[in-house]
Amino acid sequence: MTSTVKYLLTEDQMPTAWYNIQADLPAPLAPVLHPATHQLIGPADLAVLFPMELIKQEVSQERSIEIPEEVQQIYRQWRPSPLYRARRLEQALDTPAKIYYKYEGVSSTGSHKPNTAVAQAYYNKQEGVKRLSTETGAGQWGSALAAAGAMFGLEVLVYMVRVSYAQKPYRRALMEAYGARVVASPSTETASGRAVLAEHPNTTGSLGIAISEAVEVAAQAGDTRYALGSVLNHVLLHQTVIGLEALKQLEMAGDYPDIVIGCTGGGSNFAGIAFPFIGANMRGETNTRIIAVEPQACPSLTRGQFTYDFGDTAHFTPLVKMYTLGSTFVPEGIHAGGLRYHGMAPLVSHIADLGHLEARAEHQLECFAAGVQFARCEGILPAPEANHAVKTTIDEALRCKETGESKVILFNLCGHGNFDLQAYMDYHAGKLQNTAYSQEEVAMALAGLPVIA
Amino acid sequence: MTSTVKYLLTEDQMPTAWYNIQADLPAPLAPVLHPATHQLIGPADLAVLFPMELIKQEVSQERSIEIPEEVQQIYRQWRPSPLYRARRLEQALDTPAKIYYKYEGVSSTGSHKPNTAVAQAYYNKQEGVKRLSTETGAGQWGSALAAAGAMFGLEVLVYMVRVSYAQKPYRRALMEAYGARVVASPSTETASGRAVLAEHPNTTGSLGIAISEAVEVAAQAGDTRYALGSVLNHVLLHQTVIGLEALKQLEMAGDYPDIVIGCTGGGSNFAGIAFPFIGANMRGETNTRIIAVEPQACPSLTRGQFTYDFGDTAHFTPLVKMYTLGSTFVPEGIHAGGLRYHGMAPLVSHIADLGHLEARAEHQLECFAAGVQFARCEGILPAPEANHAVKTTIDEALRCKETGESKVILFNLCGHGNFDLQAYMDYHAGKLQNTAYSQEEVAMALAGLPVIA
Repeated sequence: MTSTVKYLLTEDQMPTAWYNIQADLPAPLAPVLHPATHQLIGPADLAVLFPMELIKQEVSQERSIEIPEEVQQIYRQWRPSPLYRARRLEQALDTPAKIYYKYEGVSSTGSHKPNTAVAQAYYNKQEGVKRLSTETGAGQWGSALAAAGAMFGLEVLVYMVRVSYAQKPYRRALMEAYGARVVASPSTETASGRAVLAEHPNTTGSLGIAISEAVEVAAQAGDTRYALGSVLNHVLLHQTVIGLEALKQLEMAGDYPDIVIGCTGGGSNFAGIAFPFIGANMRGETNTRIIAVEPQACPSLTRGQFTYDFGDTAHFTPLVKMYTLGSTFVPEGIHAGGLRYHGMAPLVSHIADLGHLEARAEHQLECFAAGVQFARCEGILPAPEANHAVKTTIDEALRCKETGESKVILFNLCGHGNFDLQAYMDYHAGKLQNTAYSQEEVAMALAGLPVIA
Repeated sequence: MTSTVKYLLTEDQMPTAWYNIQADLPAPLAPVLHPATHQLIGPADLAVLFPMELIKQEVSQERSIEIPEEVQQIYRQWRPSPLYRARRLEQALDTPAKIYYKYEGVSSTGSHKPNTAVAQAYYNKQEGVKRLSTETGAGQWGSALAAAGAMFGLEVLVYMVRVSYAQKPYRRALMEAYGARVVASPSTETASGRAVLAEHPNTTGSLGIAISEAVEVAAQAGDTRYALGSVLNHVLLHQTVIGLEALKQLEMAGDYPDIVIGCTGGGSNFAGIAFPFIGANMRGETNTRIIAVEPQACPSLTRGQFTYDFGDTAHFTPLVKMYTLGSTFVPEGIHAGGLRYHGMAPLVSHIADLGHLEARAEHQLECFAAGVQFARCEGILPAPEANHAVKTTIDEALRCKETGESKVILFNLCGHGNFDLQAYMDYHAGKLQNTAYSQEEVAMALAGLPVIA
């Protein structure tokens, strides 16, 4: 039996700065616009939602942004995270490819989300904020922010999409164990929640509505700021510790990836693993293939439009240019709840538009099959989101088998599936289906996009 | 904010041998007796249940037993596990005590159980076994063996206590994702299961019954052996990597524990953390306080009798001398399911009888409160079993606050609570109660003990 091989950095090899890909973009990001006026938005407009340090990071052009010592100290609880060579999976696939995976499930809440939750809690605490409001769908983000808030003595208020609130009581229990208050969204606590309920009393909610509620509360309460778990530039920035560590670990292993793979919902775990490698490509140093994998049930990168759109349903958030299916698009209820967002991070969208990544969409049944195969070889059950990266990795490894090429593949195992066992039960019971939207359905969703002069 | 401090060994500092406490016992263990004849049992009698290497380990008097290279390779997937200094908890308690915890939740199935599951799967595979049968209550052990079996290409058959099978479908889903077959116990697949069902058609099952079924299947099928997740000497042996690593890590930190604390059900995680320290005490090198914490709802060490008893309900297993409440004792249905076993490992029992450990029993409500306090400080939600160790640690740290002593406390955080969120929901909803048995109830249970000439 061949064993998994682990590459572990010592703590003094842990990155002390995040990597800001904005410094290496061949063309700058499109500006952010005010939701009402459609004019350029400034730091002052955002100050009601975010602490100033995060607003600065949002627009910074510096390549390296120092990780505060206090954040590094908390990172050290689970970082540097391990990089594994999946020798048993390679053997099962009988592939000449070398498969490496970076494992973010070692964090306290089991995903990559604490990388930014801890940083956001830190900056808010520094600037005297007392409470953070946020939304959560599947619950990975809400759990991470609840744990980070508890560490810094910040209250955390989570608007949890109503269908998840009902179907995932354990995720809610975890957030509550960390001391967070969890409210089913839409709620009667906000004007935007009440407006939705008045029109659709039986709605199951959506991430877009939950964002509206969390933003509304932050905008109204002086001691409260809003925290987002993906999409924004500073969130993606914080995740780059993943790829920076992987770079060093692959160096230890004597390899450099030919292909880097991540799953994409809002874009944060993908950015985390891929941005340092995309940056090297952009600087002309390397020529690594970069693959972003999204679900067929929410195909913003592969079937959306690259245009200005709102981040939420009530249109409180600024307008950003991104690949989007429209802010009123409600994707099918697949188990990879972390990938169900109508848009894609502006940075990831911009990079896709520049041709610096390949986008691919996969069906959930094939992804679950890949995840189960991975679990039996490697011992770790992946989160349904991560299964999309596993599926593409296996596809690429099997392609190597055909061609005889010994390519080096790196993917991000962004979280474990221990909170997602209902998904695996449903999969094994044959209860899951694939979702494929017709061209008409996608066109209808896109027709709802705002027209920006 | 004070940060948690992590002490991580490099892989080349990982122990290459387990520590066998039998070499340091001031008096040998009482012999194991045949269940039918009450005569001394020999290796040949056990060969139908276990591979010969494990039988040898069961009786070995060697202080060090080498960890096979293949087992070490799999250990390296999550080992050496981190040792943390709980600085934020210390601060919250305002104690001069130094609190260290060894964290075993980093394994793929989230507890210490893979330390022995991998070793047992390895030795069985080496000796040509095709299938392993076992029992599981809470599911930690069944999950660990399912994952280990998948890695070695062994079939795994798990008899899961019926009440857990119904109440913990997610644990079952995890085992099935790893490819194990999970059967509710008592089942109609075994004579012992059918006998129980004939008498009690609506029984919810017990660990003792599930063991009987798993042993029966192993004894009858030539290609099948039995695997146990606790109690036996070789199982406790495999867990000593925990304490051996902790010793080295504390040396890195410049400390040696004044107090070592572990929770006890069958005894394996306690043995894992404590045996290396107890051995040093027995050799006269140190004078460390050792505390074993069990639930009031299953108080074998604190209220049981030290005598010969069966390990299972149908009396298929050998007779071993241990602290026991009687093999027919069915403890209350507390959430710390891993601690609900009528007996205590013979080695742990013998050491208790020799006065080399202090036993303590705690109520579950106080343990959950301690676990929630720990989670909010340290970010990790402990398993309900581990909460018993957390409770005692907090008590001892608060005692230090009273006396002003800066004692060094080490405890084993043997698993995370991410699979146990129903327990935390019930706790937060006020649905949990404490269990305290009257003297009469305990006396009645003990009256059922076998009389051995």
